[in-house]
Amino acid sequence: MAEAGAQNLMLKQLEPLGSGTDQIEAIRAMVGHTRFFDDLQAEDLGQLVAFMHAYRAQPGETLIREGDIDDYMLLIIRGKVDIVKTDKRGVRQPMTSAGPGTVLGEMSMIDGEPRFASCIAAETTVFATLSRDAMVRIVLEAPGLGAKLLIKLVTLLSTRLRQTSATLLHYMER
Amino acid sequence: MAEAGAQNLMLKQLEPLGSGTDQIEAIRAMVGHTRFFDDLQAEDLGQLVAFMHAYRAQPGETLIREGDIDDYMLLIIRGKVDIVKTDKRGVRQPMTSAGPGTVLGEMSMIDGEPRFASCIAAETTVFATLSRDAMVRIVLEAPGLGAKLLIKLVTLLSTRLRQTSATLLHYMER
Repeated sequence: MAEAGAQNLMLKQLEPLGSGTDQIEAIRAMVGHTRFFDDLQAEDLGQLVAFMHAYRAQPGETLIREGDIDDYMLLIIRGKVDIVKTDKRGVRQPMTSAGPGTVLGEMSMIDGEPRFASCIAAETTVFATLSRDAMVRIVLEAPGLGAKLLIKLVTLLSTRLRQTSATLLHYMER
Repeated sequence: MAEAGAQNLMLKQLEPLGSGTDQIEAIRAMVGHTRFFDDLQAEDLGQLVAFMHAYRAQPGETLIREGDIDDYMLLIIRGKVDIVKTDKRGVRQPMTSAGPGTVLGEMSMIDGEPRFASCIAAETTVFATLSRDAMVRIVLEAPGLGAKLLIKLVTLLSTRLRQTSATLLHYMER
């Protein structure tokens, strides 16, 4: 993971809701309902949310734009997000939708490559971001929490890779 | 990551070469040539290989068998490995080949799900394994090294997910 911070301009167009700490009640309510936050202790959670920033997006507003170079992943707290990718004819194709508890954008947070797809609010959506800088600081300043988060990321990516590989195989065998 | 150790029976059929430490010269020679070991300090490397076990496989021998439940990832030190997956008609299809410096089997090391594909030695192959138990011990006993390894795994998975997603898209758009 590179350590340089990106501009994250897309976020500047959305309504800021302060630190993730201000959303801790909503995030705490997810524990036990969403895999990413399961088994995080209350103390870990309190530490983590202090590194996050919360935003509200209105329907149609963009949370992540395909092709952009920026460096945050996000957790949907409330609402619904459409994931949309431009096909080779230049037409935007809906891929899937995601709701509360879903983590999005982790690939670019990790590798700094351009965004693979866009995330657009389908309804009023509250979400919290974690930037690459914040992730690096967690690993350095709170190594115990850092290891837990990295294990969660590794597990999340492994699950997505397995699903995507299975889907690919399905298409290849048709 | 679950902490229970698997039997890893497949490895018991191969020629053991002792601890990864015995292969450290070959592994050290990879630093700078293979992404997974770039930027690991000599001290980190010495610590890491002590958690690994080395094996030799003869051509045609299986390093990982599709469908098995076991919990190691492996690093190819010398030789060449074919990755083979059974298609829906039950025919084994070659997917790709991998050489020295390639890490394989990380998905099952992480999530404990059955092996997605088989890895078969295409020539005499020396490789070193890292089990889930060893990974957990590294995170607990050597947290600095643990964080570096987890970041490497996260980066590796993210790269593979990006490539697989791009290939999938290519098939979906045909």
